Amino acid sequence: MSGGCPYFEKRHLLFKSKLHLEEEEEDDSQEGINKASKGGIIYGDYLQLDKVVTAQVLQSELKGNKIHDEHLFIVTHQAYELWFKQILWELDSVREIFISGHVRDERNMLKVNTRIHRIVMIFRLLVDQFAVLETMTALDFYDFREYLSPASGFQSLQFRLLENKIGVLDNLRVPYNRRHYRDNFKGHESEMLLRSEKEPCLLKLVEKWLERTPGLEEDGFNFWVKLEANIFEGLSLEKNKIEKMQDSEEKEEMMEEMTKQKELFTSLFDVKRHEHLLGKGERRISYKALQGALMIYFYREEPRFQVPFQLLSNLMDIDTLMTKWRYNHVCMVHRMIGSKAGTGGSSGYHYLRSTVSDRYKVFVDLFNLAMFLIPRHWVPKLDPNEHTFLFTAEYCDSSYCSSEDSDSDTVSTV
Amino acid sequence: MSGGCPYFEKRHLLFKSKLHLEEEEEDDSQEGINKASKGGIIYGDYLQLDKVVTAQVLQSELKGNKIHDEHLFIVTHQAYELWFKQILWELDSVREIFISGHVRDERNMLKVNTRIHRIVMIFRLLVDQFAVLETMTALDFYDFREYLSPASGFQSLQFRLLENKIGVLDNLRVPYNRRHYRDNFKGHESEMLLRSEKEPCLLKLVEKWLERTPGLEEDGFNFWVKLEANIFEGLSLEKNKIEKMQDSEEKEEMMEEMTKQKELFTSLFDVKRHEHLLGKGERRISYKALQGALMIYFYREEPRFQVPFQLLSNLMDIDTLMTKWRYNHVCMVHRMIGSKAGTGGSSGYHYLRSTVSDRYKVFVDLFNLAMFLIPRHWVPKLDPNEHTFLFTAEYCDSSYCSSEDSDSDTVSTV
Amino acid sequence: MSGGCPYFEKRHLLFKSKLHLEEEEEDDSQEGINKASKGGIIYGDYLQLDKVVTAQVLQSELKGNKIHDEHLFIVTHQAYELWFKQILWELDSVREIFISGHVRDERNMLKVNTRIHRIVMIFRLLVDQFAVLETMTALDFYDFREYLSPASGFQSLQFRLLENKIGVLDNLRVPYNRRHYRDNFKGHESEMLLRSEKEPCLLKLVEKWLERTPGLEEDGFNFWVKLEANIFEGLSLEKNKIEKMQDSEEKEEMMEEMTKQKELFTSLFDVKRHEHLLGKGERRISYKALQGALMIYFYREEPRFQVPFQLLSNLMDIDTLMTKWRYNHVCMVHRMIGSKAGTGGSSGYHYLRSTVSDRYKVFVDLFNLAMFLIPRHWVPKLDPNEHTFLFTAEYCDSSYCSSEDSDSDTVSTV
Amino acid sequence: MSGGCPYFEKRHLLFKSKLHLEEEEEDDSQEGINKASKGGIIYGDYLQLDKVVTAQVLQSELKGNKIHDEHLFIVTHQAYELWFKQILWELDSVREIFISGHVRDERNMLKVNTRIHRIVMIFRLLVDQFAVLETMTALDFYDFREYLSPASGFQSLQFRLLENKIGVLDNLRVPYNRRHYRDNFKGHESEMLLRSEKEPCLLKLVEKWLERTPGLEEDGFNFWVKLEANIFEGLSLEKNKIEKMQDSEEKEEMMEEMTKQKELFTSLFDVKRHEHLLGKGERRISYKALQGALMIYFYREEPRFQVPFQLLSNLMDIDTLMTKWRYNHVCMVHRMIGSKAGTGGSSGYHYLRSTVSDRYKVFVDLFNLAMFLIPRHWVPKLDPNEHTFLFTAEYCDSSYCSSEDSDSDTVSTV
Repeated sequence: MSGGCPYFEKRHLLFKSKLHLEEEEEDDSQEGINKASKGGIIYGDYLQLDKVVTAQVLQSELKGNKIHDEHLFIVTHQAYELWFKQILWELDSVREIFISGHVRDERNMLKVNTRIHRIVMIFRLLVDQFAVLETMTALDFYDFREYLSPASGFQSLQFRLLENKIGVLDNLRVPYNRRHYRDNFKGHESEMLLRSEKEPCLLKLVEKWLERTPGLEEDGFNFWVKLEANIFEGLSLEKNKIEKMQDSEEKEEMMEEMTKQKELFTSLFDVKRHEHLLGKGERRISYKALQGALMIYFYREEPRFQVPFQLLSNLMDIDTLMTKWRYNHVCMVHRMIGSKAGTGGSSGYHYLRSTVSDRYKVFVDLFNLAMFLIPRHWVPKLDPNEHTFLFTAEYCDSSYCSSEDSDSDTVSTV
Repeated sequence: MSGGCPYFEKRHLLFKSKLHLEEEEEDDSQEGINKASKGGIIYGDYLQLDKVVTAQVLQSELKGNKIHDEHLFIVTHQAYELWFKQILWELDSVREIFISGHVRDERNMLKVNTRIHRIVMIFRLLVDQFAVLETMTALDFYDFREYLSPASGFQSLQFRLLENKIGVLDNLRVPYNRRHYRDNFKGHESEMLLRSEKEPCLLKLVEKWLERTPGLEEDGFNFWVKLEANIFEGLSLEKNKIEKMQDSEEKEEMMEEMTKQKELFTSLFDVKRHEHLLGKGERRISYKALQGALMIYFYREEPRFQVPFQLLSNLMDIDTLMTKWRYNHVCMVHRMIGSKAGTGGSSGYHYLRSTVSDRYKVFVDLFNLAMFLIPRHWVPKLDPNEHTFLFTAEYCDSSYCSSEDSDSDTVSTV
Repeated sequence: MSGGCPYFEKRHLLFKSKLHLEEEEEDDSQEGINKASKGGIIYGDYLQLDKVVTAQVLQSELKGNKIHDEHLFIVTHQAYELWFKQILWELDSVREIFISGHVRDERNMLKVNTRIHRIVMIFRLLVDQFAVLETMTALDFYDFREYLSPASGFQSLQFRLLENKIGVLDNLRVPYNRRHYRDNFKGHESEMLLRSEKEPCLLKLVEKWLERTPGLEEDGFNFWVKLEANIFEGLSLEKNKIEKMQDSEEKEEMMEEMTKQKELFTSLFDVKRHEHLLGKGERRISYKALQGALMIYFYREEPRFQVPFQLLSNLMDIDTLMTKWRYNHVCMVHRMIGSKAGTGGSSGYHYLRSTVSDRYKVFVDLFNLAMFLIPRHWVPKLDPNEHTFLFTAEYCDSSYCSSEDSDSDTVSTV
Repeated sequence: MSGGCPYFEKRHLLFKSKLHLEEEEEDDSQEGINKASKGGIIYGDYLQLDKVVTAQVLQSELKGNKIHDEHLFIVTHQAYELWFKQILWELDSVREIFISGHVRDERNMLKVNTRIHRIVMIFRLLVDQFAVLETMTALDFYDFREYLSPASGFQSLQFRLLENKIGVLDNLRVPYNRRHYRDNFKGHESEMLLRSEKEPCLLKLVEKWLERTPGLEEDGFNFWVKLEANIFEGLSLEKNKIEKMQDSEEKEEMMEEMTKQKELFTSLFDVKRHEHLLGKGERRISYKALQGALMIYFYREEPRFQVPFQLLSNLMDIDTLMTKWRYNHVCMVHRMIGSKAGTGGSSGYHYLRSTVSDRYKVFVDLFNLAMFLIPRHWVPKLDPNEHTFLFTAEYCDSSYCSSEDSDSDTVSTV
């Protein structure tokens, strides 16, 4: 729209109901008619530019020492916050689809996937956006940074909400200066944060959804049991092959490797080990959900799983881009204030570095499943003639889906 | 700062004057002390987030039919406007340096160049930003576009100011629906636009600066006359060589080419032709300024001209990126509303396409000088022992520079 | 892999068949064992770096006047050609899936969509890649450009193949210097180009696929007839509303707009007009395919159409990015050689500009369908209980699909 | 050039010497004349595309199991290697300018800065390039990764050369699997690497250059001594102010902060501490060079220091982008193979993570100087009337500069 986009041809007035036209006529009478707007809203009012582009107040100027570059500093951070708001908007809408149960109507999968992908695209922009702020040198920044104290990015409410709603865990956060992150916020904001921690985060909602992956049913296809059988049969065959090899260094190495593989896959099917890793925060989703994710991975080409597979990829993209964002942030801070802010005490640079960690990766399990990939012929065969769930999507109308006691995962509309 | 940047260590309080501390203490007493801020300003207040992230009001929601994607539409345009504000901020500061004459103090060249480069970096981001809006499909847009009428990007005040301040000419603008572009604006805004047309734009300021390029002085190095002599001597020598070739198709072609070259360079040294092209808008800067630009091109490695040469490159980058921005905009509009908005009448798509034109390229002369490049040995020799201006920068203190009648271009402080 | 990626753990040796191990042992005996590679292939050999990073021969150096920046020029163009090869690789594989009929097995849709999306991502990179070449100024380029004559990007075989295989039409190409584009190529290459023009291009294959869109069947859901009825009923109702309005300027405008709308939609359902536009190159796909595309647009949320809808979006992305690539190219050429190469004759710059045109947009129909969007309640209702095709994907095994006479579009495997 | 760029107009034939024309005529006679090339070279031959775009041999295909995505894997890595070659080309040319002493002729500073900036732009592209490879999922990669063993990015000769030539230190490298990095290479390559470690790296050359920064001379402006005096006087004044404040928690905090500041700056002027940090690898340049860098920082607006300041910024950009490249690489590896390759032994993922460390930041001192910034009025005053070196660049002809015993830093040509 900016810069001359005449999207809004008169034709669209056509489809407005009488009611709306009347409302607008009233508006006209209040505002007076000007050349730019005859009924309806004009660009600047629509975007509330009187608020947005007047919100740049330089502290340095207030203190009588206007520093040119502070304007860039403000605008960049405001742009970040605008986009954080948009991410929250998408995130909340997706969470709502999951929470309400509408996700069971697979017509909503396109929407879910598109909105998650949009978050990906926004984060990609935010990562690039550092290049603009980096046109400010440490020396330019030094000239006004004293006036900003104690304002700090720690106090970005939206960023913390965003982390919580995606699924960053309170107890996995790195503490800064021994303070709880919520202590940086006023009462009202602190409550919002607490509430966001208690609401179901994206990770938990995706977990529930993964647990319902068709094919996991023990009285149905029973994926997990079939998979375990295939893997160990496959490993056994490989072992036999190796044993028949002539003695050599290579044979020894392969035997050693075989042992490791067996241990690895044994651990995969060990529910207790899963619980142990969950406790340490090294795994983040339930054992059933893990199975669902692997099922989607292996059968991703089945019509039913194509969009779910894209969704899992997009969730990994979000994690990756958030961690790249954090890392770009670290790099910028290093340039702006060096590696230590003082000779003693905690350093902002080192704190930020510590958040570029797998502890902050929410969908870490989706990445780590790459350790458990297997040759295609080890994947349990699925006959579409028998298992129609592979290509038959699930519909449900809203009345049905919102019912809390609905646990049926079978195709209900056919 | 966003997302946890503790730039603002207490140490900086150190350098605050007593006065400032007192002011802050007063602020405290008014606001009450909270955990987040003990003296000084906190993040959300500093960025006025109460204004910025509350300015997203969906027209579709007001009309009782909330459409999810309208939020993206609003935020994207607000982000554009935020960055337009930043570009104007940089642009005004650079224009001020030129207008005040401070540009004669070459210590200011780093500042000028850095700020122009920053505009380049912002435009680069703005071009990329379309990728986010493009996650909205034409169908999603259709669902709310009727509510926006008649708001239109034509009404972006800041974009028009930006164009005017860089140097887009009123009489070179493509009219839309036979209306003058200022007619899209309210009285107050229309006056701002008119004023911006009358103030010296970046193009005009750069032109004045180029006219003062050392080396152009007729009683000094007299670059232009020397250049003309060298070029025609060079061409003459080449012609002789060709004439000595054996008759062949190639010889004929080269002879033909030689004639064209001679015409081309004859036109370069023809001031009347320059005036003619100026009149048509095909050239935009004075004859003298053109000479200055070519001088900087040819002697770009001389210490005195290194930063000026970077500046000319950055100015071309701005032009290029603005035209890419326009073209990306066109592409998005094509996707959103198709190539025609109706069966008759003017089309927004075609209007926008027509603005992706060299008529909107402000620094078009800097590009077109590429037609007049010559072999290095044709460039008039400049002996640094004789012409010290090549490596001796010009200083001037502000009292001197602001004097209107100063036309001296010689080095004044040594 | 570059820069230290140890992807290739020994474990994978495990899954190699005996046969492969033997092959490698043989290789070993031929090559000799070194520290870096004990059986198997090493990085540099795998990537054939002896060919790739030794292919930079500077013409300027051969001519005894080595110009530093020519290396950048060569490497950039080689990188473009590498990526063109990758695009052709993806394009051919997708075309093969369509040609062989495998596309009827909807398990292949993920593959098709992913590969088309990969082309999108590559083009995005290629657009950005200009920023690297733009670090070379016109003056740097001038120093070696004479040595390159008559080499020219016109002679990029892969780019022409790529255009042909996507669907740029020979008769819509802008001629350069009155020569046919194939005349720039040697005999062998010219034949490859001719062959690529005759093979089914992506556009034609997508067209055939769109024509089979379920729901178009006249003896089935009969989308097109239902749509026409709904639209004209809708317009009629709107017209009635307007007629009841009090006389006013607005009423008149709306009535005028109504007439235009009616004309617009009348044209949509006029097959003769479609044929007329096809003849002029303003439409590029068949009438039936157009209907299929609109059907996918309107029912994009149905499980069966989610991935097809993504595919259509990705195809538009390819078109958009190719046109952006062309435009970035134009901008670079303007900077490098100015707007005219001589005082007379044709200009490379203006030729290139003329290719940034909708004539070169292959999937132009997908964009222009945005002109025919309608309110959601005008879209014909589709009851999933009645029309199971909406959520039931089509499988077919390869023996079936490759049969030429298969025209059935109903779900065949269930 | 690709895709239709007619850069190479006939006119340029004009400037070719007779000799060259003859050579080309001979070429013609050998090759025969075809439509595409009448004398001179054609595109495909110029770029040696017969080597570059035929170098994609899939191991999976050789092993009888062609996996589509291996082609992307190969092309991506070849593109990386092409760009690494270009970076080495720029790096070597810049090092040559420094080594030969030509850097003393300040006409060469534009060249140095432009080429370093080009490396920055290439790295920016390389960081973005991961987005293309990430269109390949872990599952696609799994299908062919076994065939690649033991090829590994560890074996990228060019990347290791690049690291060495910039200045990554052998003893600061993280060992992988307890092997020295050179052990991954064949004899010839290993020698190249060893040689590159012994040649002067960019860091060392920049260090030497910084040590010569005008203004450091003890018998001249004597920057370091003046700076020390000013800082401690400034701190003392601040301390006095604080002492006069009323007792309060704030006063205590400020006093504490003051102590830290004093310690910090005391450490800056402590040459022994510098040597200690050098020994630990926490500082990388000499004490004198550190002083030069800070001098350039503080007086960056002086004409003499504008381009040097840009150079320092660009060097930091290289460091930052290399570390971002490493981090993006880590993220991709996590996605491709998970966090552990086996249940025991070393993990490629964790190794790569460990290289995203300040140990691999070559110009770490330039970043860390941000800890020692001071208010503008503490910076020692420099009167241009007295110290002409601030605006008078140094020339020297090559005969002079190459003389080893030249240690004069004063302006020598005037």
